[in-house]
This record gives sequence, C-alpha cells and structure tokens, in this order.
Amino acid sequence: MNAPSPKPSRLRDSHVTLAHGGGGRAMRDLIEEVFTDVFLPPGSEDQARLMTGALQEPGAQLAFTTDSFVVTPLEFPGGDIGKLAVCGTVNDLAVGGAVPLWLSASFIIEEGTEIALLRRIVASMATEAAKAGVRIVTGDTKVVGRGSCDQVFITTAGVGVIAPGCDIRAEHIRPGDVAIVNGVLGDHGATILAARGDLALSTPLQSDCQPLNHLMQAVLAAAPDTRAARDATRGGLASALNEMAEAAGVTVEIEETALPLRAEVKGMCEILGLDPLYLANEGTLVVFVPEDQAEAALTAMRGTEAGRGAVVIGRAGPKGSVPAVMRTAFGGQRIVDMLVGEQLPRIC
Amino acid sequence: MNAPSPKPSRLRDSHVTLAHGGGGRAMRDLIEEVFTDVFLPPGSEDQARLMTGALQEPGAQLAFTTDSFVVTPLEFPGGDIGKLAVCGTVNDLAVGGAVPLWLSASFIIEEGTEIALLRRIVASMATEAAKAGVRIVTGDTKVVGRGSCDQVFITTAGVGVIAPGCDIRAEHIRPGDVAIVNGVLGDHGATILAARGDLALSTPLQSDCQPLNHLMQAVLAAAPDTRAARDATRGGLASALNEMAEAAGVTVEIEETALPLRAEVKGMCEILGLDPLYLANEGTLVVFVPEDQAEAALTAMRGTEAGRGAVVIGRAGPKGSVPAVMRTAFGGQRIVDMLVGEQLPRIC
Repeated sequence: MNAPSPKPSRLRDSHVTLAHGGGGRAMRDLIEEVFTDVFLPPGSEDQARLMTGALQEPGAQLAFTTDSFVVTPLEFPGGDIGKLAVCGTVNDLAVGGAVPLWLSASFIIEEGTEIALLRRIVASMATEAAKAGVRIVTGDTKVVGRGSCDQVFITTAGVGVIAPGCDIRAEHIRPGDVAIVNGVLGDHGATILAARGDLALSTPLQSDCQPLNHLMQAVLAAAPDTRAARDATRGGLASALNEMAEAAGVTVEIEETALPLRAEVKGMCEILGLDPLYLANEGTLVVFVPEDQAEAALTAMRGTEAGRGAVVIGRAGPKGSVPAVMRTAFGGQRIVDMLVGEQLPRIC
Repeated sequence: MNAPSPKPSRLRDSHVTLAHGGGGRAMRDLIEEVFTDVFLPPGSEDQARLMTGALQEPGAQLAFTTDSFVVTPLEFPGGDIGKLAVCGTVNDLAVGGAVPLWLSASFIIEEGTEIALLRRIVASMATEAAKAGVRIVTGDTKVVGRGSCDQVFITTAGVGVIAPGCDIRAEHIRPGDVAIVNGVLGDHGATILAARGDLALSTPLQSDCQPLNHLMQAVLAAAPDTRAARDATRGGLASALNEMAEAAGVTVEIEETALPLRAEVKGMCEILGLDPLYLANEGTLVVFVPEDQAEAALTAMRGTEAGRGAVVIGRAGPKGSVPAVMRTAFGGQRIVDMLVGEQLPRIC
C-alpha cells in the first residue's frame, strides 16, 4: 500500500478509452499508474505468490470468497464502491472465522469513465485494505464500450486462514444462544437510498461500511464457543437471521425495542414504507454466542472500533413454525420473513 | 461438479429480474438452482473452507489470480463466456507454475437475461472445471437493470499451489533459451471477430479456448529448468513476448515461417489488415526453456491434448534495441512492438 507514485503521469487521457482495455501499451500504462503503483510492491507479477506460517499449521484451513460490487452511486456518504469492495470481502471472510489476508480486485470499466474517479476509488481501496490489515495482491481491468456497463463494477475475491479448531457456522446455533449485533441497523441502505437523489431527502446519514475482521477476532478470543456470525448485507438483518435459523433448525426471536436504529433511518422507513430489518448493512453483523459467553462477547465487541454500539437483540429458541419472529414494542409477535423480491437494486 | 439437479424448478421466471439480485428468496432460488446445485456439494456455505496437503509442504507457495470476462458474443464457436472464465483463470495460474485447485465465480447479470442462457454458461463452466481438475467453490450474483451491463459479465479468481522449488518467471529467461508455442495462433481472436457478424464472414474457425494446466505440468516435469511461460491472451503473442523480454532484459527473435497459423486466420488477417501476432488466444501459451531441454519440452507438450501442435518459434538473444523482432519469410527483420491501442474490444 504505497501512496500514488509521484512520477510524471504516462496517461495522456483524462477518461478511459477502449484502448485502455486492449492488452497493449495503453492498458499497461493505465494499470500500472492507476492500480498497481498503488496496490502492489514494484516488480509484482500478474499472479501473486504468497505464503504465511498460519496457513501451514496442521489443522488450518484456507477460506476463499468473492463478491461483485455494482453499487450506484459510486460515491456516497461514508464510502464508495472501492471501500465497499474491500470491506465486503474482508467481512465475508471474517464472519466465517477467517483472518483475511489477501484480496484480488478486478475492474470492469465503461469507456468514458473519468480517470480521476478511478484514482479516488483505488485510493479508498488502499486505505481500507490497510485498515483491515489485508493486501490487494492481484487484479484485472476490462474496458467495455459506452452503455455496456454503468461506469465501474468491481469484483473482489479474498483468501484468509481459519485457525486450527475454529469452526463457526450457522448449523452450530442452539436454543438458548444469544444474538448480538455490533451497531445500528440500516445505515447503508438508507444512505444509498438518500444518495440516489430521487427522493430529495437530505440526511446526515453515512454508510456503516467498515471492516469487521478485528471485531470478529476479538469476539472469538473472548467467546471461544461462538457459534456463528453473518454480516447483514443484501436482504438485511431479516435475511441473515432467516438463513442462519434455517441452517441451525431453530427459531430466532428478536426484540423490536432492542434493535439499534437511528431516528433518521426509522423516519425514512416510516415515510417510504420500508422495513429497516431488510435494509442492507455493510459493516454490521449478527453473532450468536452461548448464553454464558454473551457478556464476554459484548464487552470484547464494545472494545473495538466497529463494535462500540454492540447490543443483544434476541436469542435462539426451539424450532417453531417459522425461522424468525419479532416481539414487537406492543408485546405482539410478528413473523420476520425473508425478503421475497427486491427492496432496492444495486445497493452493493 | 454434479449434473444439474433433476428437482422441479423453483424458478417461476424464464428471465432474470431485479428481484433475483435483491438478497431475498428469489435470489436464493436463482443461486441455488442455477449455480450452486451445479457447482457445489449440497450444504456448502457462502465461504469455502479448503485445505490440501500440497499447500502445507514446506516451501510451497499459494498462487492467487483473477480475471473479469466481458466477451461478446457470449456464445461463440468453440466456447462461451463460462468456458473462457474457467480456462482464463486456470491458465493464469498454470503459466506461473501453479497447480490450479479452486476457483470463485462472480456473475453480474443484466435484468432480462434468459435463465436458459445462464444454465448453458454454468454447465460449460462445470465441464471445463472438471476437465482442468479444479473446483468452483464459491461465488456471487448481482443483477443490474436493463442497459446497465451487457447481458452477463463473469469474474473468476483462482487459487493454486506452486510446488516447493518451482520458480518460473520472465526474469529467468536468458540468451539462448528456446521459445515454444503449443499450437496455432490467433484462433480465438479471429473466431470472435467472425462471430460478431459485422463482417459477413463464414469460417470453420473455433476458439482455441482450453485449459493449459495439464500441459504446463508436463513441461515442468520434462524440462525442470523451464524459465517462464505466458498465455498469449489480450494483445496476442506480440504483447506476451514483449513483456517477457522486457522483464528478462533480452531480445527475443521469432521466425515468421515457424509461426503456426491456420490458412483461415492468415486470410482473415490479410483481408482485414490485422496482424495475427496481436490476435488474442485463450488456449495458447509461449514457454521459454533452456536449449538442452527444448526437445524434452516439445515431446512432453506434444503428448498432451493442448500441446499436439507444439513448435519452436524462436529464441532469446542478448538485449538489443527492442524487446522482440521477427525474421520475416523474405529474410528481413521487423520489430515486433507491443500493441499500442485496441485491436478488438471485448475479446475476452
């Protein structure tokens, strides 16, 4: 993660042209100057060659995951597509119990995209990778004609290592386990909605987009029997809880009054008829721990930057007729179903 | 790599809708039925957890690479975007000396894309992965609105293992080393060009798209001092030779009469004013070996399916004024420069 090179620019264009995707000198100049000079040590090959002691410990496992990012707008309060692409893949690895190590980053770029915009996105990726302690080690760039994609799409893949003996997964959740979230819900979804500008909403909201790996490691250290974690991205908390409860064969009951929601998000949901349980998050996870380790997990989470707002939101119980229910503020009970259709396209 | 599930379809649509990207039930149905039922063993998690003995050997290295694929048309003689996405990443790993093991596959899909088309692409990926002996272990799906991408883009990332002591890279090429290609040049580029239909060309050409990992392992076994290999994709053989020669500080001289070219490709290049040295290949590599191992390397390559047409095309010499030159059929010499602009967009 070096700062952008101070060398004179070899790029003669201010916008991306089809030649920048052609495999020749123009492409090499773009890739070197905009991407590899920021991400990679000098002299890196196309293919990264890597190793770390942790991966060679007996019983260690390699974790591997990928996500494509198509968010619109590309830049929004609290982040941009680059930050999202790094945090999204870091978090996918982290909630599986892995320590994220290396990322790949592949760009599909529309002809005519501003190179200055690419530089901002790349700088944001480098910043976030440094924060998470991961390295972007390999990548690719494709350019498509005007109208064949919408500015910039990024796909990251990530490799991490799961320590010997660490095995957290949704199937391990048991009745009695406590569900904790690390902070407020729905900020990312609400921010993107407002940033689209269609609604003439002015809010101080920012995306919650952030890496969760340090938080996850703190939880695993403090609550060694942590069952499972999931980041509540597309589909929101409701979809994460449904998937986990289905995999575990339990019913999760959450308390409406316990859900951490900003007044702005609540208000926006009321005006627009949205349910905050389905709003996407990009730096919010739900973790299930055994009851007797819940206090330790909470304390550990609150000691990390991403977990200051950690609260218990509910617990797992025996399998009922549906995977997830919510006890409402009025004492009633309502089914928390999975999102069926589409609440907001291109949220991430 | 199971055959597509014979279960009754849960998909009520014949075309992809925005709901299929929304993070809810529709997305889960699409992903399970079209993607994971084909690629993954039942019960797989979002994040793959993997290990293999080869990765834990002292001195082993992990290889990691990624590529996005935006080829148009999506289906062409000899392959489709799915085959390309598997072979491209397998080959990136292979030419670095790695044994490819695991791939990720991430799809960006335009609203309105036919689900039957997706199924064909996925089946093609499964077939090619089986042929290469790799597993597609994790993935992602995003859906964007009509006009925000062109049908389907695929990004694959790949993880492989480089055996202890194996260190092939362009810097190792020395004067005297022999350059071998595994087969005819330019078939992929020429096929895509013809398949676009703008030229009303009718040819029997097929893309050379194929996995090269078995071939590379055969070369490494037969010629243990193999210096470097590169697949001649975007930018063609000319760009691969330039990059390798520059990295090594040598000048490579190739023989025009030695270049394996189909009559159809030659003819198309003559008609259209294209240079076959810059046409993209998706199953063709150039490998540099020490002179005394060239015969063994050739024989080993010819014993593999992808290397039957292997021939020597030239050799490295001391660094001259340019990285690559070609001795022409008439005995003259011409500079083989890197491609400067764009010969054909969206070739891969």
